[in-house]
Amino acid sequence: MTKGRVTVIDIAKAAGVSKSTVSLVLQGSSLVNEGTRSKVNAAMRELGYVYNRGAANLRQASAKSKIIGVVVNDLTNSFFAELAVGVDMVVQSAGFVQFLSNTSESIDRQREVIASMREHGISGLIVSPARATESVDFKPLVAAGIPVVVVVRSLPGAKVSSIVSDNQGGTSAAVEHLASLGHTRISFLGGFPDTAVFEERLAGYVDGLKAAGLGFHEELVVSSAPSRAGGVDAIGRAMAMSDRPTAAVCFNDAVAFGVCDGLRARRMEPGRDFAVVGFDDVIEAQTAVPALTTVSVDPQGMGRRAAQLLLKQINAGKAEPESVATAVRLVVRESCGAAEKKAGRKTA
Amino acid sequence: MTKGRVTVIDIAKAAGVSKSTVSLVLQGSSLVNEGTRSKVNAAMRELGYVYNRGAANLRQASAKSKIIGVVVNDLTNSFFAELAVGVDMVVQSAGFVQFLSNTSESIDRQREVIASMREHGISGLIVSPARATESVDFKPLVAAGIPVVVVVRSLPGAKVSSIVSDNQGGTSAAVEHLASLGHTRISFLGGFPDTAVFEERLAGYVDGLKAAGLGFHEELVVSSAPSRAGGVDAIGRAMAMSDRPTAAVCFNDAVAFGVCDGLRARRMEPGRDFAVVGFDDVIEAQTAVPALTTVSVDPQGMGRRAAQLLLKQINAGKAEPESVATAVRLVVRESCGAAEKKAGRKTA
Repeated sequence: MTKGRVTVIDIAKAAGVSKSTVSLVLQGSSLVNEGTRSKVNAAMRELGYVYNRGAANLRQASAKSKIIGVVVNDLTNSFFAELAVGVDMVVQSAGFVQFLSNTSESIDRQREVIASMREHGISGLIVSPARATESVDFKPLVAAGIPVVVVVRSLPGAKVSSIVSDNQGGTSAAVEHLASLGHTRISFLGGFPDTAVFEERLAGYVDGLKAAGLGFHEELVVSSAPSRAGGVDAIGRAMAMSDRPTAAVCFNDAVAFGVCDGLRARRMEPGRDFAVVGFDDVIEAQTAVPALTTVSVDPQGMGRRAAQLLLKQINAGKAEPESVATAVRLVVRESCGAAEKKAGRKTA
Repeated sequence: MTKGRVTVIDIAKAAGVSKSTVSLVLQGSSLVNEGTRSKVNAAMRELGYVYNRGAANLRQASAKSKIIGVVVNDLTNSFFAELAVGVDMVVQSAGFVQFLSNTSESIDRQREVIASMREHGISGLIVSPARATESVDFKPLVAAGIPVVVVVRSLPGAKVSSIVSDNQGGTSAAVEHLASLGHTRISFLGGFPDTAVFEERLAGYVDGLKAAGLGFHEELVVSSAPSRAGGVDAIGRAMAMSDRPTAAVCFNDAVAFGVCDGLRARRMEPGRDFAVVGFDDVIEAQTAVPALTTVSVDPQGMGRRAAQLLLKQINAGKAEPESVATAVRLVVRESCGAAEKKAGRKTA
């Protein structure tokens, strides 16, 4: 590929589109339809145009393109993949490249990847801490003046910014909704008890029971891995109880999908025979059948906010710790049984 | 955290376990149970031991910890997340750190992240090329002697190694299986026609029809985005046909799940009223209800193989291009209707 001094105008002419359309394509904007996009890309290749911010940065003072490190604890949970995509949207348009690493909940691996990212001169770090992470684990970064934004799981005591969702308010609203539908035996299914998120969501569960005038019964709290398989396991244990629950607020959507799977395996229909509410509102929550009633966190939005906060601190040259609790809202769909009629209409 | 000269033996003593157990924990081995792992981690923290291969490498000749670049085209598809996890398993134990970037099918973004990874001295690259990627796009890396392994989507003409699954054999087997169940109107749903994978899987679909003595009807090929939403769209168009299909081989599992969603929205039960076969065998395929009949590719296995091939070339100091077509196998579960009795027994 020749790296000629081809301009955006040349490409616009060759592709027969406007200059701004070419810019939108370069920015990977979703506003451009596929046909136009391919026309522009064809013209770029034909003219040997190479869009390369890395190279652009090379021409600037900094010898290397700027990178943002992103470390997540479970890449197989689509919540974190969507969060990373949200981060990418923002850092990309700011001229940064995202390097993502997965820890699979191992604090050893977390130390290792963060050390490596530091060596490679990350401008800032966005991290969803692995289980058992302690505030001291981020001291070296803070000492080195590298902005850190902790997401999803808060880290009490760490002098870093954090963006977590209003977990307590979310589960509380979910429980009150289920109670308003007439449920009195509402279980809390899934999640590892040794995480801050679990504590917050469980506290909201207790709040919701109080607000609804229902008693708290410890046996209705069934912890498990925060995964689809964990949900299958949790509902299995809940259904083995002598006095079974009739509804469940799940630790997250992955658990909720597993709970639906487990119910179906018992020939019980989620939303009709048992009410299920998730937490996160991952993409599949809308298209699943029944559509999942869940607490919407908007992982991509959280990723964008985390990236914006991090960029602000990078540009300011100093990291004043900020703690943001993003608002959540209960999205009522079909799995809680409240929208059965609506579901009926949908198929008409 | 004090970086004292704490040895593995000190930790083993403090945790009351064997030296080899500590080593296993340090390597993130799954052979150690949670209880032991947390005991060892507690001892490490107590003694201020920091396990840091990056630091270990610093003590060696190379100034930086070694990184492997991984670039995928759609991180929101769990197939790629699992592939990345498979790569991580191998590179981690070899003392490498994985830096992952997502292109969201943008070749501009792909050039950008690869350029950035090059600047940061990656030892090698594993990439699932974005749509419209051309072999020339990897010339610079090849010229620089950086080993590249292309996965999932082959790249004809590129002088790099590739690991792709036997796409043609996979869809062919799927079609023959559906024909053996008595289906004669079998559709091929989902996927972008301008990709090598689509061409290979479509060719297998045609092979399968021939082998089963069925004719090819172009209208039964309905392309769409290779996503869950794309599957909902594709089955919608298939169900609008005057002469509807009774079964579908889907481009991938994401499309197949969308097809199942679309069928349910029409009050049709996948496996009973319409046979669905996917491709990939993602984790959810097993736990979904009905369990998805699909062509098993084992994304984690493909990731491990890609990492092993890449490490071999890195260690050899030269990259002899190798092309591996990983075998696939049809996993018959419930969504194709063949296992209805089995499904019945499962709930007994």
